Amino acid sequence: MDPSKRGVYPGRFQPIHWGHVKVIEWALQRLSELVIVVGSAQESHTLSNPFTAGERIEMIAAALEDAGIDKSRVWIVPLSDIYMNAVWVRYLAMNVPRFRYAIARNPLVVRLFREAGYEILMPPPFERERFSSTNIRKLMLMGSSEWRNMVPPSVARIIDDIKGVERLREIAGRD
Amino acid sequence: MDPSKRGVYPGRFQPIHWGHVKVIEWALQRLSELVIVVGSAQESHTLSNPFTAGERIEMIAAALEDAGIDKSRVWIVPLSDIYMNAVWVRYLAMNVPRFRYAIARNPLVVRLFREAGYEILMPPPFERERFSSTNIRKLMLMGSSEWRNMVPPSVARIIDDIKGVERLREIAGRD
Amino acid sequence: MDPSKRGVYPGRFQPIHWGHVKVIEWALQRLSELVIVVGSAQESHTLSNPFTAGERIEMIAAALEDAGIDKSRVWIVPLSDIYMNAVWVRYLAMNVPRFRYAIARNPLVVRLFREAGYEILMPPPFERERFSSTNIRKLMLMGSSEWRNMVPPSVARIIDDIKGVERLREIAGRD
Amino acid sequence: MDPSKRGVYPGRFQPIHWGHVKVIEWALQRLSELVIVVGSAQESHTLSNPFTAGERIEMIAAALEDAGIDKSRVWIVPLSDIYMNAVWVRYLAMNVPRFRYAIARNPLVVRLFREAGYEILMPPPFERERFSSTNIRKLMLMGSSEWRNMVPPSVARIIDDIKGVERLREIAGRD
Amino acid sequence: MDPSKRGVYPGRFQPIHWGHVKVIEWALQRLSELVIVVGSAQESHTLSNPFTAGERIEMIAAALEDAGIDKSRVWIVPLSDIYMNAVWVRYLAMNVPRFRYAIARNPLVVRLFREAGYEILMPPPFERERFSSTNIRKLMLMGSSEWRNMVPPSVARIIDDIKGVERLREIAGRD
Amino acid sequence: MDPSKRGVYPGRFQPIHWGHVKVIEWALQRLSELVIVVGSAQESHTLSNPFTAGERIEMIAAALEDAGIDKSRVWIVPLSDIYMNAVWVRYLAMNVPRFRYAIARNPLVVRLFREAGYEILMPPPFERERFSSTNIRKLMLMGSSEWRNMVPPSVARIIDDIKGVERLREIAGRD
Repeated sequence: MDPSKRGVYPGRFQPIHWGHVKVIEWALQRLSELVIVVGSAQESHTLSNPFTAGERIEMIAAALEDAGIDKSRVWIVPLSDIYMNAVWVRYLAMNVPRFRYAIARNPLVVRLFREAGYEILMPPPFERERFSSTNIRKLMLMGSSEWRNMVPPSVARIIDDIKGVERLREIAGRD
Repeated sequence: MDPSKRGVYPGRFQPIHWGHVKVIEWALQRLSELVIVVGSAQESHTLSNPFTAGERIEMIAAALEDAGIDKSRVWIVPLSDIYMNAVWVRYLAMNVPRFRYAIARNPLVVRLFREAGYEILMPPPFERERFSSTNIRKLMLMGSSEWRNMVPPSVARIIDDIKGVERLREIAGRD
Repeated sequence: MDPSKRGVYPGRFQPIHWGHVKVIEWALQRLSELVIVVGSAQESHTLSNPFTAGERIEMIAAALEDAGIDKSRVWIVPLSDIYMNAVWVRYLAMNVPRFRYAIARNPLVVRLFREAGYEILMPPPFERERFSSTNIRKLMLMGSSEWRNMVPPSVARIIDDIKGVERLREIAGRD
Repeated sequence: MDPSKRGVYPGRFQPIHWGHVKVIEWALQRLSELVIVVGSAQESHTLSNPFTAGERIEMIAAALEDAGIDKSRVWIVPLSDIYMNAVWVRYLAMNVPRFRYAIARNPLVVRLFREAGYEILMPPPFERERFSSTNIRKLMLMGSSEWRNMVPPSVARIIDDIKGVERLREIAGRD
Repeated sequence: MDPSKRGVYPGRFQPIHWGHVKVIEWALQRLSELVIVVGSAQESHTLSNPFTAGERIEMIAAALEDAGIDKSRVWIVPLSDIYMNAVWVRYLAMNVPRFRYAIARNPLVVRLFREAGYEILMPPPFERERFSSTNIRKLMLMGSSEWRNMVPPSVARIIDDIKGVERLREIAGRD
Repeated sequence: MDPSKRGVYPGRFQPIHWGHVKVIEWALQRLSELVIVVGSAQESHTLSNPFTAGERIEMIAAALEDAGIDKSRVWIVPLSDIYMNAVWVRYLAMNVPRFRYAIARNPLVVRLFREAGYEILMPPPFERERFSSTNIRKLMLMGSSEWRNMVPPSVARIIDDIKGVERLREIAGRD
């Protein structure tokens, strides 16, 4: 409950994978609490953003559960885009519990948080070539079940439950 | 994790008080999980909406803690206004985990969820004349500390911490 | 099909009544075609704007039918608010067939069309104290069936069909 | 006037061509009424969206006339983009008369209507390689008059009247 | 050109009057440069916001001229509303030259700039009961020419030139 | 102060360079006043739009100073995008002093002003292959200091002051 030991971790999580989970664990070793910010919340049903913010929130909670992460130390908050970079961090801050750190590797995101006076915690790249949402969506489109190894089992279960692969393939025009 | 036993509870929570907490407890006796939706998330620093969505989220979590409510059964999600009633429930649904029930007493809210095919759980009025956010803000403005009895102690602590009463009185033009 | 003999008639039509119908007939005596613009299209489910744009469009078409108005000379177009008066006429023009005249009595609307270079046709007030959407909604709320005399029969039928009175009373918190 | 026999047909109609007209005829053989939804209504004056919503509405009406289609069975409604796929169908429904069917071939559109509980009527592809708005705009840009064979004569007349080809070529930076 | 001696002065300036001019002079005695921010830029043609942002900018420049204020030390910038108080100062800062001070008396504005880390310069009330835009608009509506004494002569000239009083009275429904 | 001799000059000015300055001088030889409109004001911190509107305004004023241009004849106004081409000119006009001419070479911009009834002044291309904001940003990214010859010295000074090159390179992910 001490804002000075709280960090935010923004991403799109389309969908959350083991790489994300590693980052969350890494962050929770350094911070008392973490706010996972589900960005581009307004997007869904596209090739790069197949899942709704609500579905992504469900998946993130399930992933935390699978990984045995203490959920009482984590917040999950959806955030729609505002399309004004110079204002984005302040807009994010308005929508989440107070925090001091930002977990980020993306250069733009790092820059924006720094300009706004936050401290950056840059996680190491956890097998980024292997664990990547882009890859997962590509495998889903190709009809490979390889993506199942890249996400916690409960995430795969939710994706099955909402017929996520079918949705992605339909949108792409592949039956 | 079963959407058919999940409900949403929308409100503005400016701030959360014991009446809200009673509703949450009442709902959790009937449902396995509850999504607390912090509405008008874009509003803050006004007489009727003094607190930011982030501050309200913090207060709600603190209130759950004080009341000994199992936080693993509760989600807290901020939601900005969309200003299109006919679309609002669908917009809310996009931003939260899947659900079946809506906890509501406000006639418009009840109506909108019903039209969208959700089931309504209408909680009894828990001392509404006593516990009311409007009253709390009025007492804060008047300089009375009476409001402290209407909110869980950790909520009062956060309001003190962010100098919430001072903010409200400043906005009203009272020093 | 000649834009120079076409006019627009903006209103909210919550709901359309015999007064509106008279204006439409009056306008069609002077023009070859009329574009009925259903304003504040984004609004619904409130005390002053109970009906969606789609419902209002249906009612207007039904009213034209009842009144024996030649529908091939009429266009019905919904228009959401833009909240910039100085731009509103241009925004409206972008969304409707080309036109030369505006049918209006409201001083602001008259002014905006004039500044934008359109000609105004100001209809006489057709029993405005009797035929008024505000009155109709008031009567609906009071539980009087008096409103049925103020609208074409097919409009009343659609309102019954969508349970419009029930909706209005529910929103107002009256069962 | 029976919503259960009404369908919607969304498109951008930049501009309407004989292929669209065939779809409309095909739909009206199966339905009593059709709502043509002119999507991306806010767009105009670009290479892929040269015409305003109002101009497109005019062209559609003219095309129906040319094709001898009974206009009393057709509605034409402009719709601006909302940039939230998960909400789009509900937003469309708010702006048009009640309906049960959606006429669509685009995989995303089909998917969105299905998720929202509507039935899909998928028209056959009417010489899609020949009749295509993209082709028409390409021919206009190239200075070929070939596009005139792809649209009903009155549509060509309106495009001439508003100097549509000139506009497209100017925007592209060709004399 | 030194941001640390620059201040912003936000207002609606509907229209600018001698009281505003006094504030500008007062501020320029303390700062090297002043940015006049014309707020609610999207508003016009209403009883409280009759003039467009562009018209207000013209009037402000004319007022500076009349008052013999060195225009090379003043910037005039229109700013549309963003409807998120917690983000407003950052949004303003994005649109104006860098600054350190805010000239403000309005409690909300003072509060927002303070929370964002800016220093406040609070000007004395220069005959506020006499010089007030609200009064000026009221006098215009009443048909009194008394308002001419409250604004610099060039401002009155511009208002005459754009037929501002006529506009206000028309909007109010008074001929 | 005579609107009939005033022109607008819209651009993004990311950043302003000697080519822009030549256009401004060229325009001021033909007009009594010029309104420089800083478009896409909401954009910043991207590869094509690195600078905020406020920073661009500062740079433009500094460039005018360096070039010895009479600033009392120039207005600088930021303008956010509206994403509706058919309305854009009217939206621009609402935010700037009245004007008669538009300075433009871009075919879309020329077209939009012409359709809205303004006169176009098309400046000659002042060494466009040499002076170009795109080139400047490319040189900055490559680490070359060549860009300094393309902008007035005070502009380079501001870019140094706000660490603009560092920002651009960071966003691009280069050291």
